[in-house]
Amino acid sequence: MSEEKKRVEVCFSPESFDLYKQEYKVVVAIDVLRATTAICAAFEHGAEKLIPVSTIEEAEEYRNKGYMVGAERQGKIVEGFDFGNSPYSYMNDSIKGQTLVLSTTNGTKAINLAAKTHQVIVGSLINLDAVIAYLKELKEDTLLLASGWQGKFNLEDSICAGAITEALLESGEFISDEDSTIAAMFLYKKAKDNYFGFLKASSHRRRLRNLNLNEDIKYCLTPNQTDVIPVYRDGALVKM
Amino acid sequence: MSEEKKRVEVCFSPESFDLYKQEYKVVVAIDVLRATTAICAAFEHGAEKLIPVSTIEEAEEYRNKGYMVGAERQGKIVEGFDFGNSPYSYMNDSIKGQTLVLSTTNGTKAINLAAKTHQVIVGSLINLDAVIAYLKELKEDTLLLASGWQGKFNLEDSICAGAITEALLESGEFISDEDSTIAAMFLYKKAKDNYFGFLKASSHRRRLRNLNLNEDIKYCLTPNQTDVIPVYRDGALVKM
Repeated sequence: MSEEKKRVEVCFSPESFDLYKQEYKVVVAIDVLRATTAICAAFEHGAEKLIPVSTIEEAEEYRNKGYMVGAERQGKIVEGFDFGNSPYSYMNDSIKGQTLVLSTTNGTKAINLAAKTHQVIVGSLINLDAVIAYLKELKEDTLLLASGWQGKFNLEDSICAGAITEALLESGEFISDEDSTIAAMFLYKKAKDNYFGFLKASSHRRRLRNLNLNEDIKYCLTPNQTDVIPVYRDGALVKM
Repeated sequence: MSEEKKRVEVCFSPESFDLYKQEYKVVVAIDVLRATTAICAAFEHGAEKLIPVSTIEEAEEYRNKGYMVGAERQGKIVEGFDFGNSPYSYMNDSIKGQTLVLSTTNGTKAINLAAKTHQVIVGSLINLDAVIAYLKELKEDTLLLASGWQGKFNLEDSICAGAITEALLESGEFISDEDSTIAAMFLYKKAKDNYFGFLKASSHRRRLRNLNLNEDIKYCLTPNQTDVIPVYRDGALVKM
């Protein structure tokens, strides 16, 4: 392990990725509500492989080939698809050993964007400590990429990124100096004793509440329910 | 005055302006360290008009026509120009009644970007209460546009935007629901008792400290030193 400290920084949205990406070796894609949480849940429940696709057209092509395909837009399952990004839709025997395909509003786009140029792993609150342990062991310059909401900043992904940052900085092996990273840590410290209460204020949580997704949200905001770390290899996510 | 509540939201960077701009009537351009602070200082000290330009080439054209022209990049005065974005460079008799021209790394770009489509006023901590009072009186859908640092999020502009947001929401005449706005208010609440101490953590402040700008920073972080509100009209900023 090198003596030199590595950097960990937070990028608030895929729209800003170009401004940050040059200096990093590994990118953690984060979409707490709900894509990256659902992807972790899928691997925890036995999925073999998950192909993230950016457009509905790509998702349709896979469906026509016979894959199990999920597609979500605006928080809802797109008509004609098997599932959306609710983690609960992945908790059944039918997905065991399967290759799934998923397209979501924000999360799968962030994964595909970063995977063009970087090693990508999938982070969420449900695999938080596993991601932290892996990044400490890897010890490379690390960018935490929040998926945001339709290109904009969101609270829940920033808080998750702040949690990872704080743990890496506490290890003494990492440094950070971007203002976005400092802000993410402040928001995490403010939220960490009560994610659910803090995010009551969140626009996205309000949007989900309108869709009757309180159970989903509770699941997504409960840290450390799994040790799986999905990693992007050869066009698909697999369990590390 | 309409009974309907108006929106106030925060956009963290000019790079994200396209995602926010559709719904707003008025934009407050904010570059606390140091462009919008310097612009307020210039009008406080008697400047008649200030033309913000985005490129060094435009600044050179004005210089060749005989204008007093400032240009700053990377925190330093660009060689060959009269001044940069230090507020102190505007505190002398030579600018009284003059039309100045200014190009800076972030702030003047944000002003010009927003001025293409919106009514634009210039905000900073030094004219904070004046801006708040004006926006309350105007009561229109308001976007607070942080200039950021080279397209990225920065703390000081976000905190200033959070201060304006909190005051407008407290009036009961405004609402907000973007996560960026909620985050800006949290950061403001955290910082408000000691802007200088809070921003010790800021990357940009560290950058400026390397340039020996502690006096500038103290000035920029001291609220309510002036009541002037620069407003963009017909290609230039003037005192409202």
